[in-house]
Amino acid sequence: MTRQQLITLLTDFGNRDSYVGAMKGVIAARAPEARVLDICHEVPPQDVQRAGIIWSEALPFFPPGAVHVAVVDPGVGGRRRILAAEARGSYFLAPDNGLLGYVLRAGKARRVVEVRNRKCFLPDVSSSFHGRDIFAPVAAGLCQGLELESLGPPARSYLRRSLPREQRRRRRGATEARGVVLYVDGFGNAVTNLAPAAGVRLVRLEAGSIVFPRLARSYDEVGPGEALVLVGSSGRIEVAVNLGSAAALLGLRQGDPVRAVWRS
Amino acid sequence: MTRQQLITLLTDFGNRDSYVGAMKGVIAARAPEARVLDICHEVPPQDVQRAGIIWSEALPFFPPGAVHVAVVDPGVGGRRRILAAEARGSYFLAPDNGLLGYVLRAGKARRVVEVRNRKCFLPDVSSSFHGRDIFAPVAAGLCQGLELESLGPPARSYLRRSLPREQRRRRRGATEARGVVLYVDGFGNAVTNLAPAAGVRLVRLEAGSIVFPRLARSYDEVGPGEALVLVGSSGRIEVAVNLGSAAALLGLRQGDPVRAVWRS
Amino acid sequence: MTRQQLITLLTDFGNRDSYVGAMKGVIAARAPEARVLDICHEVPPQDVQRAGIIWSEALPFFPPGAVHVAVVDPGVGGRRRILAAEARGSYFLAPDNGLLGYVLRAGKARRVVEVRNRKCFLPDVSSSFHGRDIFAPVAAGLCQGLELESLGPPARSYLRRSLPREQRRRRRGATEARGVVLYVDGFGNAVTNLAPAAGVRLVRLEAGSIVFPRLARSYDEVGPGEALVLVGSSGRIEVAVNLGSAAALLGLRQGDPVRAVWRS
Repeated sequence: MTRQQLITLLTDFGNRDSYVGAMKGVIAARAPEARVLDICHEVPPQDVQRAGIIWSEALPFFPPGAVHVAVVDPGVGGRRRILAAEARGSYFLAPDNGLLGYVLRAGKARRVVEVRNRKCFLPDVSSSFHGRDIFAPVAAGLCQGLELESLGPPARSYLRRSLPREQRRRRRGATEARGVVLYVDGFGNAVTNLAPAAGVRLVRLEAGSIVFPRLARSYDEVGPGEALVLVGSSGRIEVAVNLGSAAALLGLRQGDPVRAVWRS
Repeated sequence: MTRQQLITLLTDFGNRDSYVGAMKGVIAARAPEARVLDICHEVPPQDVQRAGIIWSEALPFFPPGAVHVAVVDPGVGGRRRILAAEARGSYFLAPDNGLLGYVLRAGKARRVVEVRNRKCFLPDVSSSFHGRDIFAPVAAGLCQGLELESLGPPARSYLRRSLPREQRRRRRGATEARGVVLYVDGFGNAVTNLAPAAGVRLVRLEAGSIVFPRLARSYDEVGPGEALVLVGSSGRIEVAVNLGSAAALLGLRQGDPVRAVWRS
Repeated sequence: MTRQQLITLLTDFGNRDSYVGAMKGVIAARAPEARVLDICHEVPPQDVQRAGIIWSEALPFFPPGAVHVAVVDPGVGGRRRILAAEARGSYFLAPDNGLLGYVLRAGKARRVVEVRNRKCFLPDVSSSFHGRDIFAPVAAGLCQGLELESLGPPARSYLRRSLPREQRRRRRGATEARGVVLYVDGFGNAVTNLAPAAGVRLVRLEAGSIVFPRLARSYDEVGPGEALVLVGSSGRIEVAVNLGSAAALLGLRQGDPVRAVWRS
């Protein structure tokens, strides 16, 4: 397998401390040819679900052969395992806290191993910064051609988390779907777990105290400062405001309920 | 024309979502050798003027042959065009919302085309994320040697925006200039649209309720915590505080009026 | 000496202005092969101590031969010197305001010079942005093989700053150490200047109004939302909260006093 000299990083370390820099130093020392691309370091601290969504939105666009590292790791230093997986020619490295499930389809990961081989780590492993002491040197090793199997024994299973699922039911000749706001992005768009339904049309979407009568195709179908719903760039239904923030205008937050009605 | 394998990105996507990562993924997949440098991703949402100023401040320092991409795009998914330009050996890719005018001198862009060739885009183009679906693959294509003309037909014109201009007039033997605060930077410096005037000296600058009697050369000409005016690094007159924030101390904000008096 | 084509940047420029982008442009123009890695750009404005700590935490993990640039420069444009040093095969470039002392052991820097050779700068040097006009081109030059000595004359001395030191004394058969919170990181961990003592055990640590009876080994030794003290990833004792923020829960801030008691 030829490997891209490419490592991506996703963490909740923020951009104001030394943590990301230290990881990049370890990678530069052990895989001098590797390019490091930041996916995001501003995941809210310990928010595994948010990290998983970001990972699932960004990774499909990368070429095969990259090494993808996610360190959102509330269990660092404890008993949780660290896992490395290979799927579709790419490598994934994450704590066993559900992150892998956001990017590996069930049953499709060709190989998943427990990362246990201390020879691949920094000589001294702290209890609070495995990103620097384990994840970075292991990612560099994979980039340099290290075999997945040399990291540790096969993992028989790994933790999967489910995103909250929309609840659908037929009701008075229509389909009603109930869901929630999964997250609010930097523009203030409220992205929901509702998926667009094929062959039917949205006739009502309720979010907060607002009712939307239809799905828009683009932001400019409404006037500036007006709200709309559309299918966002990750295929999820989102509430947005043209030239504004839905979160600010409508007070929408993560976890808020949304309800859709579809008719054929 | 030899091209640098260099792509720069300027967006209002922020650093907390998957958007920048997805763009970098597309570029890594289609131009594996290209280096991607971030100019800035924290442009205030949809603030085309602020993006244009940042672009105009940073781009002159890059070598010819780079591909510069700006995605501050309030009209995404609507009827606005996307433009690609070539000037002085560099390439510029932006929505037709005024951004190009900040970096192309009028009449100096050798070639400007409308980006229409869907073969250069991702196979599925969303209505809300052209950064990923159009800008990133087109930038990668340009980096790989794609000809500008293959992107689409020549653009006969493109939108230009003017920054607010200072108003000058002779008055009682002096030159009076009225302007505004263009932006407040991360240090709290209030950068104005006033340009230094040659052959004359500043004898008065009014900003907020403060009057400055002269132009300083460096921050340390006043004591810690004291305010001054100087010609900033982009050639504009700015109000600053030595070891502090002019915005915090003087309450200055974008759009606030400033007035200067010059004498020979 | 072979040099890595690697430049790291640490600044207080933030990620919302054009400043970091302009520096990267200068480097791209003058050292096209150099890779630029960001250590951090969100040092609080003019906070030399915080910058020095970040530098000291991240740089030991980089390979020899890199060029490390720190621009936290409250004296920019004034009389402070700019220094370049070589130590252990790496290069360090910083204003003479104490930053070098955080990464050079006293007496171990093989060579330190004053950066004075204007031929290595941009043609026009502003009074407020030496990061772009001096640091970036000099870093690019070093990366391209420029000799340290060509930058200017040897520096006989350079400014060193001390971090606040812990005060230890024997008292009633125990060792008492008094210190302070050095900084609060992005997770809300309060990192102190207290070092773990060898051969003895912590029996009491006081921070704010909380008393901790022992040192934990990892976050999960206490329940979610509960506070603990442990030796952090940089070897300093820190106050943390499992799955939470010590700063938020305990109201800890930079400079707050802490007190430890060790017994054999």
